[in-house]
Amino acid sequence: MEEMQHRYCVIMCGGIGSRFWPYSRARLPKQFIDFLGTGRTLLQMSYDRICSLIPASNILIMTNERYADLVKAQLPEIPDNQILFEPARRNTAPCIAWAAWHIAARDPKASMIVTPADHVITRESLFESSVLAGFDFIEHNDALLTFGITPTRPETGYGYIQIGDTVEGDISKVKTFTEKPDLELAKVFVASGEFFWNSGIFLWRADVICNAIRRYVPDIASAFDAADANVYLDFEAEKSFIATAFPSCMSISIDYSVMEKADNVYVETVTFGWNDLGTWSALYDLSPKNSEANVTQNCNVLAYNSRGNIFAIRGEKLVVVDGLEDYIVSDADGVLLICPKAHEQEIKRMVNDAKVKFGDRFE
Amino acid sequence: MEEMQHRYCVIMCGGIGSRFWPYSRARLPKQFIDFLGTGRTLLQMSYDRICSLIPASNILIMTNERYADLVKAQLPEIPDNQILFEPARRNTAPCIAWAAWHIAARDPKASMIVTPADHVITRESLFESSVLAGFDFIEHNDALLTFGITPTRPETGYGYIQIGDTVEGDISKVKTFTEKPDLELAKVFVASGEFFWNSGIFLWRADVICNAIRRYVPDIASAFDAADANVYLDFEAEKSFIATAFPSCMSISIDYSVMEKADNVYVETVTFGWNDLGTWSALYDLSPKNSEANVTQNCNVLAYNSRGNIFAIRGEKLVVVDGLEDYIVSDADGVLLICPKAHEQEIKRMVNDAKVKFGDRFE
Repeated sequence: MEEMQHRYCVIMCGGIGSRFWPYSRARLPKQFIDFLGTGRTLLQMSYDRICSLIPASNILIMTNERYADLVKAQLPEIPDNQILFEPARRNTAPCIAWAAWHIAARDPKASMIVTPADHVITRESLFESSVLAGFDFIEHNDALLTFGITPTRPETGYGYIQIGDTVEGDISKVKTFTEKPDLELAKVFVASGEFFWNSGIFLWRADVICNAIRRYVPDIASAFDAADANVYLDFEAEKSFIATAFPSCMSISIDYSVMEKADNVYVETVTFGWNDLGTWSALYDLSPKNSEANVTQNCNVLAYNSRGNIFAIRGEKLVVVDGLEDYIVSDADGVLLICPKAHEQEIKRMVNDAKVKFGDRFE
Repeated sequence: MEEMQHRYCVIMCGGIGSRFWPYSRARLPKQFIDFLGTGRTLLQMSYDRICSLIPASNILIMTNERYADLVKAQLPEIPDNQILFEPARRNTAPCIAWAAWHIAARDPKASMIVTPADHVITRESLFESSVLAGFDFIEHNDALLTFGITPTRPETGYGYIQIGDTVEGDISKVKTFTEKPDLELAKVFVASGEFFWNSGIFLWRADVICNAIRRYVPDIASAFDAADANVYLDFEAEKSFIATAFPSCMSISIDYSVMEKADNVYVETVTFGWNDLGTWSALYDLSPKNSEANVTQNCNVLAYNSRGNIFAIRGEKLVVVDGLEDYIVSDADGVLLICPKAHEQEIKRMVNDAKVKFGDRFE
């Protein structure tokens, strides 16, 4: 396929992993952990599933300088000049803008898929065919395309996309993006057949996303337009330019700044077994359970009168537990967390309290 | 006081500490831990409180070879020839017999106090006056004397001693020793004013206890009578003799084998603030609580919706806990235990299960 050489992949790998705190931490975020016990981390699995579809030299990793060693250790096949280090945390819009400007400078015909490094996809062959169909669509249309996951339950932890008119195959116009619904609304969404989970995976041509950013977030676009294309082709020049241009961008998501505003936004409905592993409960649900419905990550557990828990321990440890139901128990790197799964939304606050009270090393 | 040079103290320090598992362990039993946060371990506190009453050269430590380094590190002032290593675990009767034969060989006029290394006594001046009164009594009577603690609550975790006729001062004949009562019976005991907690601290002359052992547990007595007095005066000869004599003894407590059978048994009722720290709950009750009624040993805790817990952590760790009431949380040396205080009697079984399933290193 002649068009394959114009296809790029951007793996966003800069998250700091506070949702699985303390098991995933600022110094070892979620994407660098082998949560499924397969021997491959979420980042490695993200790479594995894309590398048959995209030329190796066209795969970019967007991450933070502090994760340089982790990325290089986990993906030794990726050359240094395909790892772009964000000098500050600015959410997805500046990250995607930089990647798009970087790619557009190399290849005016470039198309690209943008994917987080920390999601789980269980049905890889369906993923492949969906990606190929998506590339085919955006290569022939000035479209901003996102994957909408066919919902399998009334999940309240995800945003939903309502589809409009079908354009071709599984691809439709987007009617609306929604916030996370409450349970009642989520049930209505699922029953309607019109609502799909917002995956945060995008496909578009580099020129199309650059122009959309120029139109809807001109401040960010002008930060990247301040350098001419040659700068993006020179590793050192680009690094030096980005050191000031990137932090000058506002922190904003691509969803909010572009996708919810543009009128050429499309959704491809897919069924490839997706989970964003956004919560301990999501990990619990996805993981194999023992006979007492407990889940273990990296530890031995001796359980009495205990069901529905998830145990995630860094370092070799035996956990002996009695009388605990539906809890998260996680011990890693100087922190032990014991928290009901039902309170997992409070963990962010706990991390913050721990930092304020006991210092940054607990982040 | 001329009689002081004939007074000896035997500190029994061989326990393996399974009750505070995993915080106290076979390799670091309870008596070697600073549970009260005073900077002194229970063994050191036992030594401190006796050493103004007994000549330094008359204090003996009875322990197991595996704790040699711990004893020497914690009590560097004790010379090697005052530490007697039991070659096997045989409960208190053989331990006390050896100590008595060892002391009697040195001093036919010896009197002795025998005390566990792992109890807490909070009112040391009352302890001192009780000990002095006790020595005075046994030096003038062929008595087996034990301390009976005036009960302050209907405790079901202790055995009780019923007193008979008063002999002099706080000293009475023992009417009966009782097993641990249930709560109803414990209430009756306390209300009666006749029942006192069995402290496991004993005072007697060496010749009196030796003769009692000869009469009530002749098998043990003959094991120690098999050597003549000179053997007990020669460090190497004694060690070599004990290596076979001691393990040949049956494993039995001094309470069951002698105290409950002899007719010259007396109790001194005392009020010196005694706690045998026999359970996690006892430690909880004794320890200062924070505003949420949580107790911490050696860790920082950030607690949400959590009351009445005890956290005991070896190594530097932050514990973040939500929604936990009346639990024991202990993490040490490769084991994390989470167990309701109300189930603490099950911990022995858990230790055993852990050993069977995962190996001796978890003892």
